[in-house]
Amino acid sequence: MHRRAFLRIGSLAALGAASRLPAYAHGSAPATSDAAGAATESAELWLNWNENPLGLSAAARDAALRAMNRAHRYPDAERDRLVATLAARQGLGPEHVVLGCGSTEILQMIVQAGAGPDGLLVLAEPTFEAVGRYRRPHDYRVERVPLTPEFAHDLGRMREITRRHPGPVVVYVCNPNNPTATLTPSSALDAWIAEAPERLLFAVDEAYFEYVRAPGYRSAAHWARERPNVVVTRTFSKIYAMAGLRLGYAFAHPETARRLNAFMAMDNANGPAIAAALASLADDGLLARSRAANEAARRIVTACLDELDLAYLPSHTNFLMHRVTGELETYIRRMREHGIRVGRPFPPLLGYNRLSLGRPEEMERFTATLREFRHRGWV
Amino acid sequence: MHRRAFLRIGSLAALGAASRLPAYAHGSAPATSDAAGAATESAELWLNWNENPLGLSAAARDAALRAMNRAHRYPDAERDRLVATLAARQGLGPEHVVLGCGSTEILQMIVQAGAGPDGLLVLAEPTFEAVGRYRRPHDYRVERVPLTPEFAHDLGRMREITRRHPGPVVVYVCNPNNPTATLTPSSALDAWIAEAPERLLFAVDEAYFEYVRAPGYRSAAHWARERPNVVVTRTFSKIYAMAGLRLGYAFAHPETARRLNAFMAMDNANGPAIAAALASLADDGLLARSRAANEAARRIVTACLDELDLAYLPSHTNFLMHRVTGELETYIRRMREHGIRVGRPFPPLLGYNRLSLGRPEEMERFTATLREFRHRGWV
Repeated sequence: MHRRAFLRIGSLAALGAASRLPAYAHGSAPATSDAAGAATESAELWLNWNENPLGLSAAARDAALRAMNRAHRYPDAERDRLVATLAARQGLGPEHVVLGCGSTEILQMIVQAGAGPDGLLVLAEPTFEAVGRYRRPHDYRVERVPLTPEFAHDLGRMREITRRHPGPVVVYVCNPNNPTATLTPSSALDAWIAEAPERLLFAVDEAYFEYVRAPGYRSAAHWARERPNVVVTRTFSKIYAMAGLRLGYAFAHPETARRLNAFMAMDNANGPAIAAALASLADDGLLARSRAANEAARRIVTACLDELDLAYLPSHTNFLMHRVTGELETYIRRMREHGIRVGRPFPPLLGYNRLSLGRPEEMERFTATLREFRHRGWV
Repeated sequence: MHRRAFLRIGSLAALGAASRLPAYAHGSAPATSDAAGAATESAELWLNWNENPLGLSAAARDAALRAMNRAHRYPDAERDRLVATLAARQGLGPEHVVLGCGSTEILQMIVQAGAGPDGLLVLAEPTFEAVGRYRRPHDYRVERVPLTPEFAHDLGRMREITRRHPGPVVVYVCNPNNPTATLTPSSALDAWIAEAPERLLFAVDEAYFEYVRAPGYRSAAHWARERPNVVVTRTFSKIYAMAGLRLGYAFAHPETARRLNAFMAMDNANGPAIAAALASLADDGLLARSRAANEAARRIVTACLDELDLAYLPSHTNFLMHRVTGELETYIRRMREHGIRVGRPFPPLLGYNRLSLGRPEEMERFTATLREFRHRGWV
């Protein structure tokens, strides 16, 4: 499977091994749906990719269907409308907005814009692997900094490392962090950005931003107006349930947006995705519905984990990390044999599993399976 | 407009000027369709982006609509199915296939894989501008070689230039060529590839491949099995009428495919596009219907051009280049004032206009307007 292969590669320290892996590793995925690529979800539970299990909102679906009437046209005007809408919601001009084929393409643009023989990339460990992967074909040093005991980014240590590097630095901060679902204090991040030299380019990944309800948390997007060295990425793949449609965006200083767009693939946003995004943004109930379902799902899981005395990290997203006893790969395999796909290993946190939160009824099935595992002495 | 701005930038020789242009130049496009980004084509004729005016095939549309039920999921299995299908049709294994967010992303991967301080990019003038644009943020020399008097790539002169450059070279060959719609002899290209050293990486852009009916023309895809230094790009944007869905692919040697995929944005193919592509490939009538409509449209235009004694280049695609008298920009503006968008200027061919072929009835409207222009002494 492509995505799985990609992310496995991303998490490998050994680059030599990675370069020998095929880009597409076939054979492990079950056949899906019909010849038209459509419709029915399999009986298997997919709790592994942090998708919004509610699916597209009805309004988004209708808009995407209508957009098929223009699928033979390049979606220029639609693109401009989305850029203007995103900008206006943030109180910015359109020149602050970057679009991506998923926010992952924007992360790639950031890495490429910062790449060079004297460049340094600083990121947490563990964090989302894409950025490290995008660095790989470039001359670029990487420093990985373990999370704090509270599973926040260790901004102090990251900062120290940047001080010792005179050249350009890309600092990747995933907040909330994937895979841990934990927060890095916004005030501490803001304090660093406020004093940081311009040779540091901050990539603040807010893919799960809309799920966070913690009082002290705030987006870093306000920096887009003030500083040329902060890019805040967001996505329609998570709470907006558009992972399959591939659309992300970022806020940045206009000068930085231009710098990134030099690395953009032309026409990188597709028409139906843009239509679905505009309709989703206009759907007032979407966020509340998704958060409510997610919180119900999380309560079901945490009640079970409490009951089984399996520790878990505080979750501010649509997934959570919980302890597993015994060997993680064995746990993942057994869950799969029981029809449940859970998250992959995220070294060095190999005592934990990342679990995406499905619909509440799906999590009832998951917890029943987990209780069965306990009954068998597997967890 | 984004696409327009991008391509204008692409055609500018002056890089300094380009870097000052905004990535999104708003205000020139008419508002399109409704708030859902959908449906009705305006009364304006869009004869400027080489789209297939027939729209998605019914089978492709149905498949894309069904795929919306899985739009919240990453389309991994679907992607694998498309890769396997494309490979099988070419008699290759899936490890030969690269997917892109449009073939343009694959062109970008090629440029990036070949980039370096000692790199050289050789391309025709005029040709499709994207490749030259993707080179821009990199240390990379560019040599532009005028087309021959027959409007073919001047392979002899291109070859000479590569001989004088000891480092890595990317050779871009767009066949049929955009914007001229003309062919470069396949036999001559094959002869060069057969003898070329491995430091030359050939990017053969076959975006309009399916339109060509000329007897001597053949795809360069067969090289993907034999040589690591040939990449053949194709797209679903043109005859498959999926420009708005953003999906392209390439055939390459497995080693080269891996090299390119290191520059791929993760999950770069969206689910509805994959579903539409698979359905389009299975739609036996699609190519014949599209070619027939295109040939009817072309006959209407060439009859009128003959009548008005305006020369045109032989067209092997869904567009053609014809002479205009007087100032090209004036012609383009006047056409727009008459509700018809025609192609942009392609220096140095400023005595010609590129005209996309719409539906036959649309071309009747175009030719009526052109006759009116003649009546007024404008062409």
